[in-house]
Amino acid sequence: MRFLVSAAVVALATSPAMADGIVDNVNGITVADGGRVIHFKAILIDKDGRVTRLVPPGEEAPKLSRKELKKNAGKPLYDWRIDMGGKTVLPGFVDAHGHVIEMGFGALSLDLSMTKSLDEAKSRIAAYIAGNPDRKWVIGRGWNQEAWGLGRFPTAADLDSVSGGHPIWLSRADGHAGWANREAMREAGVTASTVSPAGGRIEKTGGAPAGVFVDGAQALIEKVVPQPLPKERDAAFLTAQSILLRYGVTAVADMGTTLDDWLTYRRMADIGGLRVRIMSYAMGVETASRIGGKGPTPWLYNDRLRMGGVKLYADGALGSRGAWLLKPYADAPGQSGLGFLTDDQLQNQMSRAAMDGYQVAVHAIGDKANQMVLDAIQVESETYTGDRRWRIEHAQVVDPSDLPRFGKFGTIASMQPTHATSDRTMAEARLGPTRLAGAYAWKSMLTNGAKLAFGTDFPVEKPDPFATWAAAFTRTDADGQPQGGWQPQEIVTREQAWWAMTGAAAYAGFAEKQFGALAPGQRADFIIVDRDPTTASPTDLRATVVQETWIGGEKVWVRK
Amino acid sequence: MRFLVSAAVVALATSPAMADGIVDNVNGITVADGGRVIHFKAILIDKDGRVTRLVPPGEEAPKLSRKELKKNAGKPLYDWRIDMGGKTVLPGFVDAHGHVIEMGFGALSLDLSMTKSLDEAKSRIAAYIAGNPDRKWVIGRGWNQEAWGLGRFPTAADLDSVSGGHPIWLSRADGHAGWANREAMREAGVTASTVSPAGGRIEKTGGAPAGVFVDGAQALIEKVVPQPLPKERDAAFLTAQSILLRYGVTAVADMGTTLDDWLTYRRMADIGGLRVRIMSYAMGVETASRIGGKGPTPWLYNDRLRMGGVKLYADGALGSRGAWLLKPYADAPGQSGLGFLTDDQLQNQMSRAAMDGYQVAVHAIGDKANQMVLDAIQVESETYTGDRRWRIEHAQVVDPSDLPRFGKFGTIASMQPTHATSDRTMAEARLGPTRLAGAYAWKSMLTNGAKLAFGTDFPVEKPDPFATWAAAFTRTDADGQPQGGWQPQEIVTREQAWWAMTGAAAYAGFAEKQFGALAPGQRADFIIVDRDPTTASPTDLRATVVQETWIGGEKVWVRK
Repeated sequence: MRFLVSAAVVALATSPAMADGIVDNVNGITVADGGRVIHFKAILIDKDGRVTRLVPPGEEAPKLSRKELKKNAGKPLYDWRIDMGGKTVLPGFVDAHGHVIEMGFGALSLDLSMTKSLDEAKSRIAAYIAGNPDRKWVIGRGWNQEAWGLGRFPTAADLDSVSGGHPIWLSRADGHAGWANREAMREAGVTASTVSPAGGRIEKTGGAPAGVFVDGAQALIEKVVPQPLPKERDAAFLTAQSILLRYGVTAVADMGTTLDDWLTYRRMADIGGLRVRIMSYAMGVETASRIGGKGPTPWLYNDRLRMGGVKLYADGALGSRGAWLLKPYADAPGQSGLGFLTDDQLQNQMSRAAMDGYQVAVHAIGDKANQMVLDAIQVESETYTGDRRWRIEHAQVVDPSDLPRFGKFGTIASMQPTHATSDRTMAEARLGPTRLAGAYAWKSMLTNGAKLAFGTDFPVEKPDPFATWAAAFTRTDADGQPQGGWQPQEIVTREQAWWAMTGAAAYAGFAEKQFGALAPGQRADFIIVDRDPTTASPTDLRATVVQETWIGGEKVWVRK
Repeated sequence: MRFLVSAAVVALATSPAMADGIVDNVNGITVADGGRVIHFKAILIDKDGRVTRLVPPGEEAPKLSRKELKKNAGKPLYDWRIDMGGKTVLPGFVDAHGHVIEMGFGALSLDLSMTKSLDEAKSRIAAYIAGNPDRKWVIGRGWNQEAWGLGRFPTAADLDSVSGGHPIWLSRADGHAGWANREAMREAGVTASTVSPAGGRIEKTGGAPAGVFVDGAQALIEKVVPQPLPKERDAAFLTAQSILLRYGVTAVADMGTTLDDWLTYRRMADIGGLRVRIMSYAMGVETASRIGGKGPTPWLYNDRLRMGGVKLYADGALGSRGAWLLKPYADAPGQSGLGFLTDDQLQNQMSRAAMDGYQVAVHAIGDKANQMVLDAIQVESETYTGDRRWRIEHAQVVDPSDLPRFGKFGTIASMQPTHATSDRTMAEARLGPTRLAGAYAWKSMLTNGAKLAFGTDFPVEKPDPFATWAAAFTRTDADGQPQGGWQPQEIVTREQAWWAMTGAAAYAGFAEKQFGALAPGQRADFIIVDRDPTTASPTDLRATVVQETWIGGEKVWVRK
């Protein structure tokens, strides 16, 4: 792993100079609220990088309005012009839920997300240790016992045979569990007598810690894992940003920004290295307050960064059985998951955030957790009125009787279509056949009047908007499985999905005046792609290649 | 204490609009390196708030150079003009050593700095408690047993009679000791068996903690003192800024910026509330690294904020006998003060800072501490070459044989002239008659070729540049005592002092290209005063009234 921050910043292509300009001769397609598709042949951009006008296909040459002509009397219509040769131009995608720095660290460290078996994972770990003998701690992520077909959690003993004496700490794909070897547990002082903390669970075998630590129990090991240096955090950010730009993602909601993450964003932005737009949700109320004081920050760096809200957690995840369910897991009858907070604690934290004007985004995966958050929103809305845009992140398993409640108090369902395709068999095992009606229920959200925003939860899933898009209107995976779609009644239209990945995702972050839809007054964030995704087959759509990514009227990434 | 941040920000007067302009008809006086005094009748300022030209007194009307005329053909010389009616204009002062947020908190909380006796202090504390019954903790600062003529440290018992059951924690004027009552010690769990930590000392009576905690021992109590909220920190900043602007101070070196201080500066700057220029020295290497990553931040907010260095501490202060001396205190033969770090620790921290390009500023008051830092600079300079500007803060008591070493490796002596007038009798008691030769030795620093920068160490002293200036060339206090000056061989000239408070103080912070001297290319930071300080008597100089303060060509403060 090498950290070449300066070089990476310089390598971000920037063009053209900031002056009024036109991106001309495009097959432009964008979407508006309600799913209306708009075509255009050129984008007029002002020197601040905002769209001034989309030129419709029928118009001979770009024209300014009478008012604009008067204001700009004697000046040329634009100072620069780029002819795109008829290529397809789309609005940049907005990912409504991701973890920027975490994705960067994942990409820079041991990555097990593509492993198909425990044995393959062990081989990769052994190879990593052989290639990085000077690193005391082996840190990695991405394992998933479901993808391995293991039928159980992995254990410390599984790691000890390949550890070579190194402490090892590996995050599960969903970030809701960690896997330690014996050496790591020894360093952390975890023994058979260590008690699971509130909101966490130590997996055990014969009374001893087995190696996997779920949700809050991860802190038992993490407290001794060396923290990354700021320069490593910078490198992680730049790596993550480069991945996002490659996928045509021009803005993201960063769900759980730590203080050091925030300092990294500012550090990078101060030297011109922040290109992607970040709607930051601070990790907890105290972090929000330390950053923003008595309210959200303004939009900074020409609408590239704002800390506007707080991320809270009501429960864990389904894969690690941390999701908090109303009834026990179908495949673990003694367990109902983990509630991270009491009702009072959740409402107290929501109040503390809301009284200072922070938006509140609460992670809720299980139906019990979703119910709890909906209850809390109902209570909080009595005091904190106005345009609050309460967000429920994931809203993954919802009791059908609770679905209509998402339409109230302006609640936003922030969901991840690719989770449905990745989780399908796991979810069926965890929930059994009777609880799938309110699971991944995208269309029900819209039907009930909720705002629907789509993201990927990267790095849990790749931040690939085309995979999200195809999953959303097919409910099938990359192999087209299951045929006809899983629980197909929850399919949304192609245009509804597109809006949830652009304008609605920006709206969910109070950013609809800044970006999201490619429309006059908004920042000129757009991408050049190799096909028309509004007509491509699902398979073709998934294969879309991004050729260029533009943010604020500047070309910030180009496929080499 | 009320926190009206928004109102305070709005109240900062700003004028005129940012365009080319002229501040005309002034009795302008500034100083250049070497003490050369320059007169001017007008300042031409560009739209970025930089000086483009000082118009000399003889010149009829402001003229541009031929090159400028060519560049600006057809444009007016300026878009706005302010006639100052012949008032005296000086460069804004740069304070080379202060504590911004601490001064603000001091001004907003219980302030004992003007008390003349322990009894008066107790009355003020009782009155404060009566006026703030809802505050559990009573927090204050500014006490000085020397100023009270107490002949001993105050004790917990002194406070218990007025505490009304509240825990009380009061910082000494120099910030190097804290005074707790019994209740505060109880909350902190400090008992007779508590051991003084390294770099700290618990004052004792009969084996029990007496109430005063020196240097590192303060942390024993501070760990239970409630931390201020971010909004309180914002209010403290705005209060401090308003005090600085009132004194005509337009830039400061903030010596020991914590992470939360930094977040406050950014928060304020993001909403346009940062007016004074801050050269930030992070509190320790880790804080610097968390903020700046692998090096100093750029200049931010139009040269208003930069974190460029690290503040380290070699010892404590003279008043609390924490200054580390080569030989024991004259008035406490068993004590030689406190060295905060071993040689290895100091050099290790300096190396960690220097390898990432951070400037290093080390607090050293006693002659032993100064010797240690000079040794460390000599060692570090072998590896870290180039323009490093190693800073010794205070350089208060120096062994005469060490004085020539300040002229090497570009070392900067960052000193506070008003300390000499405030400390005189205390210093004579602590040091005895034989160690005064190298104490507060300003002229010797210059003679030996060291760079000399002046500040006040606010809030230890008021950030009053006119008091600093008069003290520097008289070595007398406000009452003219002692006649002829204390150790008068260390007097510097009026012009040398002025440069140390302007251009040299900026140079000491790597800011000489940004501000300091009122010269073309620099930011237009200047003040309007009611007299000519270059000819006023010391008494008249001390009485100078600042009428307006301008930063970056904008009027940011005006006397009501």
